[in-house]
Amino acid sequence: MPAQSPILGVYLSATADLDALYGDALRSCAMDVVLRHPAEIDRPEDVRFAICWEPGEGAFAPYPNLGLAMSVAAGVDALLAHDGVPRGAAIARVRDPHQAELMAGYAVHEVLHYERGFSEMAGNAAKARWVPLRMRAPASVQVAVLGHGTMGRAVVRGLRSVGFSVRVACRSEPAEQLPGVRYLSGPGAVARAAEGAQYLVNVLPLTAETENVLDAALFARLAPGARLVQIGRGEHLVEADLEAALDSGQLAAATLDVFREEPLPAAHRFWQDARLRITPHVASDSLPEVVSAQVVETVRALRDGQPMAYAVDRARGY
Amino acid sequence: MPAQSPILGVYLSATADLDALYGDALRSCAMDVVLRHPAEIDRPEDVRFAICWEPGEGAFAPYPNLGLAMSVAAGVDALLAHDGVPRGAAIARVRDPHQAELMAGYAVHEVLHYERGFSEMAGNAAKARWVPLRMRAPASVQVAVLGHGTMGRAVVRGLRSVGFSVRVACRSEPAEQLPGVRYLSGPGAVARAAEGAQYLVNVLPLTAETENVLDAALFARLAPGARLVQIGRGEHLVEADLEAALDSGQLAAATLDVFREEPLPAAHRFWQDARLRITPHVASDSLPEVVSAQVVETVRALRDGQPMAYAVDRARGY
Repeated sequence: MPAQSPILGVYLSATADLDALYGDALRSCAMDVVLRHPAEIDRPEDVRFAICWEPGEGAFAPYPNLGLAMSVAAGVDALLAHDGVPRGAAIARVRDPHQAELMAGYAVHEVLHYERGFSEMAGNAAKARWVPLRMRAPASVQVAVLGHGTMGRAVVRGLRSVGFSVRVACRSEPAEQLPGVRYLSGPGAVARAAEGAQYLVNVLPLTAETENVLDAALFARLAPGARLVQIGRGEHLVEADLEAALDSGQLAAATLDVFREEPLPAAHRFWQDARLRITPHVASDSLPEVVSAQVVETVRALRDGQPMAYAVDRARGY
Repeated sequence: MPAQSPILGVYLSATADLDALYGDALRSCAMDVVLRHPAEIDRPEDVRFAICWEPGEGAFAPYPNLGLAMSVAAGVDALLAHDGVPRGAAIARVRDPHQAELMAGYAVHEVLHYERGFSEMAGNAAKARWVPLRMRAPASVQVAVLGHGTMGRAVVRGLRSVGFSVRVACRSEPAEQLPGVRYLSGPGAVARAAEGAQYLVNVLPLTAETENVLDAALFARLAPGARLVQIGRGEHLVEADLEAALDSGQLAAATLDVFREEPLPAAHRFWQDARLRITPHVASDSLPEVVSAQVVETVRALRDGQPMAYAVDRARGY
């Protein structure tokens, strides 16, 4: 087999050191794929692909021959919205099976945390007080899940495994359905899923249609005193509507893992709000070894003119 | 149909007002079953059954014609150990499908709580600090589950649904096996399940064989820095061995929901130990409507001389 010259890529991120995160894993799994930081690149015209996480404005401009921009995460909204990605370049993303399980674990943890009163019990324990709390039959608890992609399906499975009743808003009704789950699709699916639910879990992808979906009108459909678990994108949430719903008691609490600005600025009032549980975008993560393997596979497909399994449909948006 | 005279039962509990908990549900589902507190009973010889939760010493003595002692919970160890239950009386317990789901929810919550660092994140959030924590692939995390009855099976399903690798110690290998689960039975099954595990979840029934099963030797088999989730019975745990394992770092933390003495006395040093998460025996609970229906069904079977579906094997102990 003749030696091929390596295919060159660039790390593009305004907020993370992608070489520190993925460099070792990439180097250990491929000799024919080379990645550099922008400052280390002499001939930008040789760069054929970019590995991205929140690329800055103008990040793509120096590279006229890009055939691929690949996100290291499952969400590609930042890449789709970035006007610098060349029209002809493919956009791809990592699809890590562990990622869906991590997401499911986070969502299940938060619903159980509220439902079983773990904060209240910790407060009692700190005072050496033994106060058993009342429990509801899990099947009597309605959880609305927004989104039924890889993430949404894993979240639904996790919630069902501990007995909750689930209604899920999907693009189309799936062929395979779980018992105890109602699948809602078509116009108004999101609103119908939320109707009377005690918990609302958002795992929608960010598109023009889903932006600001978590608003006053949706919160009003939930059962009074409902809880929100927001693990989609920051842009899904109308922050002022959330605060109004908390003030009125329509929402009792919310868990927020994603924000319009990340990291959430230290001065943001959310940090000080005792009704909120704030986590730093950790509902899920790609694992370096999985990211590397999928990057290498995708880059080789680009080089060889083959279909890219991890590419997204740029028009549809996911 | 000729009217039958109601069958009379007595509430026996030293610690709970069972009429307050179950009276309404019982009255609303049966006219032919009547329950009274001991003080309300004129002719003790008419009492045919007892509904029990931690009956006091001598509680059964006044009732010579008892044919049934039924626990309102899943555990019957207190009834089996009580020397007052007449030899000829059946011992029965409630088997609530929701109870297993509640137990699974509690166990899954605790494992995720530790695994994803929710306490550490809450500490960071209180200081407005954005610090994403590293995640492991759930499949790389080994959880040992002790016990594979109704509860154990539900716990295993819940843990698998969020991706953890599970090894479970069972009495005998089940016919139906889940992918990602190793079933261990026979001598040493408990020790083999624990080997190298990062988490140990105990849902064994309490028998002479399982008493003190959570001891130094078992903790030593776990991975260093493992966590214990103790939702079996207080008597499973050797308290001094737990503290030694925490002191040495072999265990990093433990969640305790059950204790040798309940309520856990306010002066017990466990309350003050920051390495412990203490909850007041709430991993699971029977629901009043389920308890009532099963009590009524069992009492009618007693009256009619039919087999009792909720009776336990007094020799085997569960």
